[in-house]
Amino acid sequence: MNAIPKPAADLLQQADQLSASVTRPIPGSRKIFVEGSSPDIRVPMREIALTQTPTIFGGEENAPVTVYDCSGPYTDPDARIDLSAGLPPLRARWIEARGDTEQLPALSSEFGRSRETNGKLDAVRFPGRTLPRRAKAGANVSQMHYARRGIVTPEMEFVAIRENQRLDAVRDAGLLAQHRGESFGASIQKVITPEFVRDEIARGRAILPNNINHPESEPMIIGRNFLTKINANIGNSAVSSGIAEEVEKLVWAIRWGGDTVMDLSTGKHIHETREWIIRNSPVPIGTVPIYQALEKVDGRAEELTWEIFRDTLVEQAEQGVDYFTIHAGVLLRHVPLTAKRVTGIVSRGGSIMAKWCLAHHRENFLYTHFEDICEIMKAYDVAFSLGDGLRPGCIADANDAAQFGELEALGELTKIAWKHDVQCMIEGPGHVPMQLIKENMDKQLAECGEAPFYTLGPLTTDIAPGYDHITSAIGAAMIGWYGTAMLCYVTPKEHLGLPNREDVRDGIMAYKIAAHAADLAKGHPGAQVRDNALSKARFEFRWEDQFHLGLDPEKAKEFHDETLPKDAHKLAHFCSMCGPHFCSMKITQDVRDYAAEHGVDEAQALQAGMAEKSAEFRELGAEVYRPG
Amino acid sequence: MNAIPKPAADLLQQADQLSASVTRPIPGSRKIFVEGSSPDIRVPMREIALTQTPTIFGGEENAPVTVYDCSGPYTDPDARIDLSAGLPPLRARWIEARGDTEQLPALSSEFGRSRETNGKLDAVRFPGRTLPRRAKAGANVSQMHYARRGIVTPEMEFVAIRENQRLDAVRDAGLLAQHRGESFGASIQKVITPEFVRDEIARGRAILPNNINHPESEPMIIGRNFLTKINANIGNSAVSSGIAEEVEKLVWAIRWGGDTVMDLSTGKHIHETREWIIRNSPVPIGTVPIYQALEKVDGRAEELTWEIFRDTLVEQAEQGVDYFTIHAGVLLRHVPLTAKRVTGIVSRGGSIMAKWCLAHHRENFLYTHFEDICEIMKAYDVAFSLGDGLRPGCIADANDAAQFGELEALGELTKIAWKHDVQCMIEGPGHVPMQLIKENMDKQLAECGEAPFYTLGPLTTDIAPGYDHITSAIGAAMIGWYGTAMLCYVTPKEHLGLPNREDVRDGIMAYKIAAHAADLAKGHPGAQVRDNALSKARFEFRWEDQFHLGLDPEKAKEFHDETLPKDAHKLAHFCSMCGPHFCSMKITQDVRDYAAEHGVDEAQALQAGMAEKSAEFRELGAEVYRPG
Repeated sequence: MNAIPKPAADLLQQADQLSASVTRPIPGSRKIFVEGSSPDIRVPMREIALTQTPTIFGGEENAPVTVYDCSGPYTDPDARIDLSAGLPPLRARWIEARGDTEQLPALSSEFGRSRETNGKLDAVRFPGRTLPRRAKAGANVSQMHYARRGIVTPEMEFVAIRENQRLDAVRDAGLLAQHRGESFGASIQKVITPEFVRDEIARGRAILPNNINHPESEPMIIGRNFLTKINANIGNSAVSSGIAEEVEKLVWAIRWGGDTVMDLSTGKHIHETREWIIRNSPVPIGTVPIYQALEKVDGRAEELTWEIFRDTLVEQAEQGVDYFTIHAGVLLRHVPLTAKRVTGIVSRGGSIMAKWCLAHHRENFLYTHFEDICEIMKAYDVAFSLGDGLRPGCIADANDAAQFGELEALGELTKIAWKHDVQCMIEGPGHVPMQLIKENMDKQLAECGEAPFYTLGPLTTDIAPGYDHITSAIGAAMIGWYGTAMLCYVTPKEHLGLPNREDVRDGIMAYKIAAHAADLAKGHPGAQVRDNALSKARFEFRWEDQFHLGLDPEKAKEFHDETLPKDAHKLAHFCSMCGPHFCSMKITQDVRDYAAEHGVDEAQALQAGMAEKSAEFRELGAEVYRPG
Repeated sequence: MNAIPKPAADLLQQADQLSASVTRPIPGSRKIFVEGSSPDIRVPMREIALTQTPTIFGGEENAPVTVYDCSGPYTDPDARIDLSAGLPPLRARWIEARGDTEQLPALSSEFGRSRETNGKLDAVRFPGRTLPRRAKAGANVSQMHYARRGIVTPEMEFVAIRENQRLDAVRDAGLLAQHRGESFGASIQKVITPEFVRDEIARGRAILPNNINHPESEPMIIGRNFLTKINANIGNSAVSSGIAEEVEKLVWAIRWGGDTVMDLSTGKHIHETREWIIRNSPVPIGTVPIYQALEKVDGRAEELTWEIFRDTLVEQAEQGVDYFTIHAGVLLRHVPLTAKRVTGIVSRGGSIMAKWCLAHHRENFLYTHFEDICEIMKAYDVAFSLGDGLRPGCIADANDAAQFGELEALGELTKIAWKHDVQCMIEGPGHVPMQLIKENMDKQLAECGEAPFYTLGPLTTDIAPGYDHITSAIGAAMIGWYGTAMLCYVTPKEHLGLPNREDVRDGIMAYKIAAHAADLAKGHPGAQVRDNALSKARFEFRWEDQFHLGLDPEKAKEFHDETLPKDAHKLAHFCSMCGPHFCSMKITQDVRDYAAEHGVDEAQALQAGMAEKSAEFRELGAEVYRPG
């Protein structure tokens, strides 16, 4: 009679501890914290220790490399993880100290209250929930509001330290050499100061998504003058996974580098799943509230109302969702523009709103109620992610009148959000061939006043189902270079099914690559440090260092070991491509030794042909070349 | 006593038949042949049959889509494959008919002869070898030579038909609509005529690699005004695979779309392996002859001589190698320029020649003997692939003086090759951050007179070992768009080990994507046909058609079936991401139906708000929306 329903049983099984596979330490590195102006500003980073250069290559010490870390306490061996308690609320004191919020006596949303009092949900409900906070009457608690009043919040300072990635240490070690970037008019800084963070947020060029009801989050920033970020989507659906699996997916996604995670669940415990995810998430969580609102009307888009949607926004804002995708730019007049498309409207949110508009012959209620939505956003500091409900779903539909018409509407809405001091980013396509990508970026910058752009890929061709993490990583790297602030990942399962754990990893890796390639191309200071360190390790046959510096140390080692499984080989002076008798890197070292011995100038004089040195070098070379 | 040595036994085991996994038909398609001006010009293509559009979406027939096919007879169920006999010599009659070649009485190379008479090699030797052909004294048998004399060869006509991919049929079906391309000054044609092929070859802007001793090859062309091609590398090394495995790898690589294959073997049966590969290859085969020459001097680069190298060129030319990578641009004066690099010289060929130059204090013998090499090339029609021995091996070393110094030398050598009417392409990097890629292309076009560029990636960051098919597909797509004619693939194992079969498939897929994305962006006529057909199939829930139109139908189906394994679901009117109760594509169809019923103009008038239609639509919509 009192048997726990199946998903609840699954969840409880997992609630005590996560699989070791998602929490095991990342090889070769340790979690460090850089302290800010007060001891409770402790910014997590990952430090990769490097070994000494082998004597044959010079024998020098190699300074450790610090990298951005969004994996939270899960990769910290000192942290005690208890999913049922959630993560420590590291921002709680900052929020309280501002004195502009209050803890509510009860949940404000009707739906939230109904879930609280439903005994059938006891087994799946997150146990340690406290009551939410909200801005005091008339207050605006958005980071943008503080920024515009000249206040540098602890969150902004945290972000500044985080973005710098200990560049000072790198600069001191003389490792900052890199190619000149092309930033297409971005305002790339040599050092990120808290004041610069404040200014960018105040101008609307960056957002710092962190709902006051998600005090567990480690502040991060999204804007084109900061490091390019990536988002990973998780979420079950009617045909797929349960709650427990989603929490593990979150931890898995941030382990590999998801800067934010969107919970796109549409299943039956959507409210409870979200609670577990937020309470255990050190990264901002985004959602698409219209998905849940649609479930509340049993899937009948035409029955959606502002009241149902409003209640959903409040419900989610009080759980701590950090940004909402809101498809307020899908206007009645845009809908018929999609009729001749090859793939019509592919955004779920966009099609819901299109259906509603047609059914009622009225303007999108998200548009007509946009200022009402702003009032909710600023009471909890939820950021807008203005949805691209009319994004192209195929190459043929790229950059068409429907897409650009919506983008213009989003520009208009951005200005309204800013009028309310509400943080705002803009979602973008989708499927776009390479030659049309830049037009998207340029138009977004122009229409939306440099508000951060957040794109899904874009996919640069439609013909590779099963490989769309790659078709889209190409477009993502390019649009990131042109100025997109955050890239929403695409997994190999895109268009085919729901991603499993390995698909999530593959998708994240493709997008970490795209984001980093963009940072390199834009010329972010220090962006090349990790490339340089890894390449130096590669040249010097420091295999373990090469693995550890890579985005995925485990995969790199696994691949290497397939060909040369013995440990000894990882120190061998040949690499696995050339075999033991021939190695181009070894020959290069001969060249380098020679140039060092004779001086580069003298070496350059070689072209005059100094035959008398020939015998000497040949002897030396023949010796060094075949160490075996 | 007479026991067959291990590799030979492996080979013989496989010689009778290939694994079914590499020859099974490609799902949903059939091999077709388009006939040219004579019945022996039969150009293979792959025709993908499509099903009818479901009634709910209009019920129309969908014309089949024809795609480029480089898989050779292996995917032709009518072909009888006998690896020991090799493929039919489809070009033999054309070569003989020109009357400018003669069959030799014996192999010309010393090494070749020594292998023929070595009884120990009987077991691994390709059994069906006939004696090679060579140009008659004083004759030049290169396609460039014919082209410059105004001759349109059957090979050129074959290529023209192949490049067009039955565009006429597509044009008749009205499926040619596509976005305007940006070709950066390329000369993109609406229709490829044999005369255009001739002219491009004559001008040196394209090469048609097909050694007269490789009559089994199906002609293809490499040039920026044609479809972007990809190359796949195969090859064993001292620590890895044997002969049999290499032949299977060839068949596997062309199955997925390798346009040419480079055999980079360095093992002990290098000569015999190559013979098996060429005799069974319908695509051009490239090699790096210096690798074998180095083995002949037991790995001591300083002991290489022009005579040993020359004998190797002749040996391989008489086997039928279609293009040779020759590192003739690594000049003595360039070598010291690499001393300060992070990763020095990473090209094996480049480092061999650098070592030789330093050991002898003399100019690279490939450079000093370049005209002698041209004489060999034109006697067999081997094309140059001028090697980039000083390509950057990391982001830090991109676009440096060594790399660009060599590129300038390659430009000089291109003109010498052209003076001899020898076909020539130019190899390029390597590792290059996005903002520096275009400079590579522009400089190559300027220095090398628009000779085809053939690049390895480039990788756009160094930090993702294990995922370098992706880091490099980004660079490959971009440089392909800018004008690179052929992209040399990179597998996930790059820098870590030798690729296995799945790595080869992954590498090829990443590069087919990059090449196609480039064709789309350049605006090749018809490039978007497959995207459009696939997207239409996707919109209409024609799952099988979607799989079949994809680059990898097997993977697409496998991924889909993981989430929704039942056959019935492939016809279901919902997709696997949204589940049965909600589907955005279904909603889009409602929009389309509405627009069709009311006319788009009337639909656009919706914004005026015609409330009287509301009830009608809501009823229709609510009905259609939930078919289950």
